[in-house]
Amino acid sequence: MSDSLDKIRVVLVNTSHPGNIGAAARAMKIMGLRRLYLVAPKSFPHEKAVWRSVGAVDLLENAVVVESLDQAVADCGLVVGASARERRIPWPTQDVRTAAGSIVEAATAGNEVAVLFGREDRGLKNEELQKCQFHLTIPTSEDYSALNLAAAVQVVAYEIRMADQQPRADQPWDVKLATADDLERLLIHYEQVMIALDFYDPATPKQLLTRIRRLFLRSKLDKMEINILRGILGATEKALGRPRDNT
Amino acid sequence: MSDSLDKIRVVLVNTSHPGNIGAAARAMKIMGLRRLYLVAPKSFPHEKAVWRSVGAVDLLENAVVVESLDQAVADCGLVVGASARERRIPWPTQDVRTAAGSIVEAATAGNEVAVLFGREDRGLKNEELQKCQFHLTIPTSEDYSALNLAAAVQVVAYEIRMADQQPRADQPWDVKLATADDLERLLIHYEQVMIALDFYDPATPKQLLTRIRRLFLRSKLDKMEINILRGILGATEKALGRPRDNT
Repeated sequence: MSDSLDKIRVVLVNTSHPGNIGAAARAMKIMGLRRLYLVAPKSFPHEKAVWRSVGAVDLLENAVVVESLDQAVADCGLVVGASARERRIPWPTQDVRTAAGSIVEAATAGNEVAVLFGREDRGLKNEELQKCQFHLTIPTSEDYSALNLAAAVQVVAYEIRMADQQPRADQPWDVKLATADDLERLLIHYEQVMIALDFYDPATPKQLLTRIRRLFLRSKLDKMEINILRGILGATEKALGRPRDNT
Repeated sequence: MSDSLDKIRVVLVNTSHPGNIGAAARAMKIMGLRRLYLVAPKSFPHEKAVWRSVGAVDLLENAVVVESLDQAVADCGLVVGASARERRIPWPTQDVRTAAGSIVEAATAGNEVAVLFGREDRGLKNEELQKCQFHLTIPTSEDYSALNLAAAVQVVAYEIRMADQQPRADQPWDVKLATADDLERLLIHYEQVMIALDFYDPATPKQLLTRIRRLFLRSKLDKMEINILRGILGATEKALGRPRDNT
């Protein structure tokens, strides 16, 4: 297995049917992906998951089960969400082929990468999609687009494998990407400073924080840039006479 | 739906489980493919096929059920077989992405195209694979390559859809491709002439006919070229004093 593929986790959020978890594990393993995260699965472990996984039961045995999406992606430099629907606030979106290139590029540069798949019936919620740097779409027929969970995982895993087999650009980024956790702390810091500045009223939030979130997710911040931004926020707080928050 | 996708049929050969036929139909329809051919399915129609097809039951209702592979591909200008195994005689092979480009190119030029998928357990037999101009492979992990039938159809249909959305080269071939039936008649004609010439002994065939088959499949003969070759064979027979065979 390629080292890059080892950096990529598939995160299934709130899956209802354990059989779909097994089928997704099979789809992953066929393409060389092995790291499965389950956020609050309805039924797991479950014999139906084992049965549908066929020869991929090792992925189920090693699956990481967590309660919240944040726990599943905290250490990730790139978080991508599979999405079928149009969203109220447009978010950066890549088709699955382009997305697979971005995913493998980030993984090859040594970053942890998460690809999120939502519920069978309703996909990912807006607040979950807003944890993502970009959304990934799979082209489907206009007439019929009922791609099931395991089929979506299969197409994404296939494209990741194809991208992993491409020759690489030889100019990797010089600093590690910021993790999802780094970014959440930055956003909390922004919120605190904006409130302190009377720039932002949590009682009438509009979509200010969401737009800031989208901006920084899109910009693929690295760790050094995060430090710079937080340094500015800290300096602002200091100037306002408040202690710097240490989240 | 694109007109090109209308020219492409998926041919499932000797499928054992009707549920897999339904899941394959669903995978096709999601990507805009609608024409399903079933060669000697074990159980069809069947409620499990309907159940697994979800919203793609129209593909099942319109499926063409035939007894032999030749019936399923007789009018096709391009026949491609999904294959996982190494073959005794190497055959032209394209990865699924390249193959999808070839498939859409042929369909766009107005040719009927068939993509064959074999049995769940043993795939396509050698004699079936030797009906194909080329074989299509889906890259999988070295460790685990148990791609199931519907997942294979999903990846192939996805790549066909992606290829169909690409801008087209604007120099289509000037003559229609020969059909599978044209080619079978040419090969029978060759066999007869080679026997007449004492060049070929059906009692000890070796792989002579297979190699000729592979040659002409690979060359993507058009109808005019077939006529020329058969004209030569007919002229040979005439010179040998035998009536020209009219298969």
